Amino acid sequence: CCSSLIQAQVHPNIMLSQQNLPAVRSGVNSYPLLKSSYLEVKQEADNALKNPISVPVPKDGGGGFTHEQHKRNYQYILACGTAYAITQDARYAAYVKNILLAYAAQYEKWPVHPKRENSNPPGKMFWQILNDCVWQVNAIQGYDMAYNGIPAADRKTIEEHLFIPIVKYITEDSKETFDRIHNHGTWAVAAVGLTGYVLNKPEYVQMALKGSDKSGNTGFMKQIDELFSPDGYYTEGFYYQRYALLPFMIFAKAISRYQPQVQIFKYRNGLLAKAVNIALQGTYSNGAFFPVNDAMKDKTFESSELISAVDIAYADISSDKGFLDVAVRQKKVIVSDAGLKVAKDIAAGLTQPFSYKPMWMSDGKNGDEGGIGILRYGAGKKQQCLVLKAAAQGMGHGHFDRLNILYYDNGGEVFPDYGAARFINIETKGGGGYLPENTSWAKQTVAHNTLVVDETSDFKANVKEASKYHPELVYFSNTAAIQVVSAKENNAYPGVQMVRTSALIKVAELQKPLLVDVVTAASATSHQYDLPFWYLGNIIDASFKIEAVKDNLKALGSNYGYQHLWLNSQNNIPQASGYITVMQGQSFYTTSFAGSSPFSVKLVSIGANDPQMNLLEGKAFMLSQARANNQTFVSVTENHGNVDPIAETTSGAKSSVSGLSVISPDQNKTIFSFKVKEKPYTITINYHDKSNFIQIN
Amino acid sequence: CCSSLIQAQVHPNIMLSQQNLPAVRSGVNSYPLLKSSYLEVKQEADNALKNPISVPVPKDGGGGFTHEQHKRNYQYILACGTAYAITQDARYAAYVKNILLAYAAQYEKWPVHPKRENSNPPGKMFWQILNDCVWQVNAIQGYDMAYNGIPAADRKTIEEHLFIPIVKYITEDSKETFDRIHNHGTWAVAAVGLTGYVLNKPEYVQMALKGSDKSGNTGFMKQIDELFSPDGYYTEGFYYQRYALLPFMIFAKAISRYQPQVQIFKYRNGLLAKAVNIALQGTYSNGAFFPVNDAMKDKTFESSELISAVDIAYADISSDKGFLDVAVRQKKVIVSDAGLKVAKDIAAGLTQPFSYKPMWMSDGKNGDEGGIGILRYGAGKKQQCLVLKAAAQGMGHGHFDRLNILYYDNGGEVFPDYGAARFINIETKGGGGYLPENTSWAKQTVAHNTLVVDETSDFKANVKEASKYHPELVYFSNTAAIQVVSAKENNAYPGVQMVRTSALIKVAELQKPLLVDVVTAASATSHQYDLPFWYLGNIIDASFKIEAVKDNLKALGSNYGYQHLWLNSQNNIPQASGYITVMQGQSFYTTSFAGSSPFSVKLVSIGANDPQMNLLEGKAFMLSQARANNQTFVSVTENHGNVDPIAETTSGAKSSVSGLSVISPDQNKTIFSFKVKEKPYTITINYHDKSNFIQIN
Ligand SMILES: [Zn+2]
Ligand SMILES: [Zn+2]
Repeated sequence: CCSSLIQAQVHPNIMLSQQNLPAVRSGVNSYPLLKSSYLEVKQEADNALKNPISVPVPKDGGGGFTHEQHKRNYQYILACGTAYAITQDARYAAYVKNILLAYAAQYEKWPVHPKRENSNPPGKMFWQILNDCVWQVNAIQGYDMAYNGIPAADRKTIEEHLFIPIVKYITEDSKETFDRIHNHGTWAVAAVGLTGYVLNKPEYVQMALKGSDKSGNTGFMKQIDELFSPDGYYTEGFYYQRYALLPFMIFAKAISRYQPQVQIFKYRNGLLAKAVNIALQGTYSNGAFFPVNDAMKDKTFESSELISAVDIAYADISSDKGFLDVAVRQKKVIVSDAGLKVAKDIAAGLTQPFSYKPMWMSDGKNGDEGGIGILRYGAGKKQQCLVLKAAAQGMGHGHFDRLNILYYDNGGEVFPDYGAARFINIETKGGGGYLPENTSWAKQTVAHNTLVVDETSDFKANVKEASKYHPELVYFSNTAAIQVVSAKENNAYPGVQMVRTSALIKVAELQKPLLVDVVTAASATSHQYDLPFWYLGNIIDASFKIEAVKDNLKALGSNYGYQHLWLNSQNNIPQASGYITVMQGQSFYTTSFAGSSPFSVKLVSIGANDPQMNLLEGKAFMLSQARANNQTFVSVTENHGNVDPIAETTSGAKSSVSGLSVISPDQNKTIFSFKVKEKPYTITINYHDKSNFIQIN
Repeated sequence: CCSSLIQAQVHPNIMLSQQNLPAVRSGVNSYPLLKSSYLEVKQEADNALKNPISVPVPKDGGGGFTHEQHKRNYQYILACGTAYAITQDARYAAYVKNILLAYAAQYEKWPVHPKRENSNPPGKMFWQILNDCVWQVNAIQGYDMAYNGIPAADRKTIEEHLFIPIVKYITEDSKETFDRIHNHGTWAVAAVGLTGYVLNKPEYVQMALKGSDKSGNTGFMKQIDELFSPDGYYTEGFYYQRYALLPFMIFAKAISRYQPQVQIFKYRNGLLAKAVNIALQGTYSNGAFFPVNDAMKDKTFESSELISAVDIAYADISSDKGFLDVAVRQKKVIVSDAGLKVAKDIAAGLTQPFSYKPMWMSDGKNGDEGGIGILRYGAGKKQQCLVLKAAAQGMGHGHFDRLNILYYDNGGEVFPDYGAARFINIETKGGGGYLPENTSWAKQTVAHNTLVVDETSDFKANVKEASKYHPELVYFSNTAAIQVVSAKENNAYPGVQMVRTSALIKVAELQKPLLVDVVTAASATSHQYDLPFWYLGNIIDASFKIEAVKDNLKALGSNYGYQHLWLNSQNNIPQASGYITVMQGQSFYTTSFAGSSPFSVKLVSIGANDPQMNLLEGKAFMLSQARANNQTFVSVTENHGNVDPIAETTSGAKSSVSGLSVISPDQNKTIFSFKVKEKPYTITINYHDKSNFIQIN
């Protein structure tokens, strides 16, 4: 696909282009979002000018002085380059020139970084090559923008003694990273490819696009082919998808400028556009990414990593007016051709709410390794959203959470995921990295809203084993009255076949849909089956009398996360049906539940065997079958009532759903019934009949 | 003071006056807040017209059908009266006439309410007389406003067979409540007094003002004399002050109309104005009332009970433009002369932020029964606020929390109070009333941020005993750099003298003030001294190595609230000095602490011995001295750093305060020192020298 024919050399020509400069210069005065974004960049550039240039010999690891200084330097280079392009003020170009000359005077002498660790290939400026690549992606853009303000002799010095040696280090010394199909590899090829365009070295671009041997077995195009599913889902999950997108989009933007004939944004059926869209569809209506796998839960699509992606997606790919909504919430655009278009259209009042859609997004490069089902009903704070995770393992950051569900309503989580066990940047908490409890707790199956067999985890929490298998989609459909997704997993627990079917069903008697969830497990031998529902808020009612442990609280188990659970209470449910009502925020959630045979309900909370108090609070009610070959758990969750804490009024604390019971737990179809305000409903799920998968009578 | 001379009879003449009607009629079209408030009232009135009148024979207790229907009826009467006054539409007056005739046809036949309980004197419409009085306060206002639209013959029937018998029931059958110096008494005298004005019966007004025997030993004036301190503090605390104010202000408004010569708003040095101001000063900058004694914690000054009070206070007493700020947040005014003025001035742009002030507010009718100290620094979300509760017991709703502190910052609680153990209106939780855990936990000393001696509570949690004594103010001062309040309590624990001194101190090295807190206890015999700090968020650092209990978690004690605490960890502090850093929301709080001798730190959490799971989550670190005669605990709390969860950046996680140590724990003066960013500070508190109480070197 990739011609080596490269367009005529002009500068700048990446995010900001020579031909568009007059429009951007005028735009920074006319369009509020571009103006405020530019003023921020200019302030950064002015800060740079105020301080003496400091290019220390690399010494410290992440967070240390030289690490932070080299990081600040690339931000300064980028800011001064941008400020120069806009203002043509020679001081900014001089800064870029001087700091890059300072690097050029030293870089070749620097050895491999002294704080190298075996786990990550080392850079020269930073302890890992990843950061060196990030440095270069930013610095080369700043250089490109300041290019015309730097004397040719100095450019020669900078290119020969800094950029060319950096490319050499990345493509030769760090060949393994450069040729890796992984997001670190993306940063590496972006660094080399962008440098190739700016320095007019087609050789670099060739390697970037097709790998160090130019065979096409690795490199950028191969990364696009393999790191995303055909739907645009990135296998590590949404939190990492956000991060991985950044180098993809910036390098793609440069390709589209220099080699428009590649039609990079159309490559693989418009994969990059899909990937941006999936990153946004991977959020709840409050903008928070679904915390699938290792993820910090407060992260939203407002985070800076997505700014370039959204700007470019809007300007160069789709002009979906919902992207403007996201840009408004990001409060920033890149000072660039794309940012100009976004800010201009926002100023023109074209913004529309970002449009969330129910969907199945496949995982796996061929789209055949399971995926993620998302059901949504309503908009904004009122949106109800159900996520069924039936994706592949997602590599080292993957959680053992096959068929996990996440449930959102009223602007936040109802059945949450714990996310990652980590306090970002808190030195005293494992240096801010993933804590031991990320492995012992957060990744374990019981930390999720999914079935746990025999108090262990999927694949006994073995990543290598888990990576061999993936769940499979059984059914997905989206109509006005019913949204349903169903998936199966047959390998997580040897000899146990699990199917989960979750649906949002709008019945005439109620304003909002019910969440209906059916979990079935079948085995030739007997097992313990636990199905936790993690909840927020407080239990205010139950069909059984809670008798919580008064003293000598004990851990529920000894491994696979169970060692971190306090067992607060346990009740038998001899009639195999009951309910729990939780008051959460301004309303109530009642989960009616029923089983194919009597079971018990355990109330648990997080905190046992946590000597450093690294874990956050959390509570679950867990449906627990002590011994059975086959088990079906059905639940119906209704949001109801209203709590007004200021007026001190409460209404509708009782659920309208009653009498849930499993009628037939047959493995081919599950039949169950319940009443809504005395109107009886019988639901049949026909696992093998896609034309009549879910039947409501 | 009270002349029996009553002004000429016109209608309406309570919240809305005949002479002001044209202005209000025009105002409901001109001023947005009055307009929206009126439209709400009119919609309620139109609802009334739509439904058939229902005046059922009283039968049900609180929350039951007849209870709710009679409640709805008085709301309809008030709404239709208002709608008639504004529109002169005869249908509204006819509704008031018809429903009151329906009551008049039955009222005299009704016996005392069948659901009477021994704890509360019964009404005839409702299970307690309080609700009958509330009914009458509202109905008589509606009648007054519809008066001119009701034929004289019908008025005669309504007055003779409804209002006069109601007054008779209140003043004779319920004489005890009527003559009680208590907020139930206030509703009773307001009901009778308002009826007296509207029916032109000076006799009723006399009784309302001076008690059923007209001696002045009871009645409204006496209630003003005795229920508030000279500063305007209501002894049950702010949550109940809000509720108690309503009948005071409405009846006072009527007195000011009919008997202006009484100068009711100037009575007792303008007590009612002070009481409104104290109700508002009794909130943090987010509007939430300080949860002193039994209190629901989400209650703010936006609650409807304060609307009349704020409207009247602004229109008739003080015209403090900060009241407009409160009215804006209440989103409503009363459709009345006062509401007109408020809405008009808001529309004119006169609103100013409500002005919070550091203050000492005395408790006790003579102002000599302790009080509440409030320190405040900064405004809005950035306001730091320290509340020292050194008030009297506050009757049956009082908590055993002598010298308790509450600390607020960054828009919310930092060292919170548990508040009341209650789920309002949740039938399954003790019918929505105070739960048993309100007594076993929420009222107990250890549930507060104050000193606990020998694992018991103040006065062994005996209300009668506690009501005999009160703390005393030692010192209060408020300067730009230092705000300080100090109080002592010598009776809560026999033989133990306690003094607490809390200060907000602004040092040059930091942007925000430090909270400095000194607790001393002295006794001739040895005791255990525990000082809990209840906190929100997560501990991310400590000067000692936390080793939390891994399994078999045990309750800390067996009584006085200790039975509800899990003991999560315990560390000795042999050097008598240490710190704990908590990450809360977007920043950090480090509390450095030191003692006069080595002590231990216990980390505790709420939840033991709570079989019904009635308690909410809560965590504290507790400074604990196992055995000593005298004990001093000093702490310095700094807010620092910044957490941006979206950008995933964290800064300033380390406190600038270090090396806190107690130099002299002498009972006459406490001397301690610490460093702020290496600048040493020595603070001396001279308990007996008011001219030099706190010295900073
Ligand atoms: Zn997870
Ligand atoms: Zn309290």
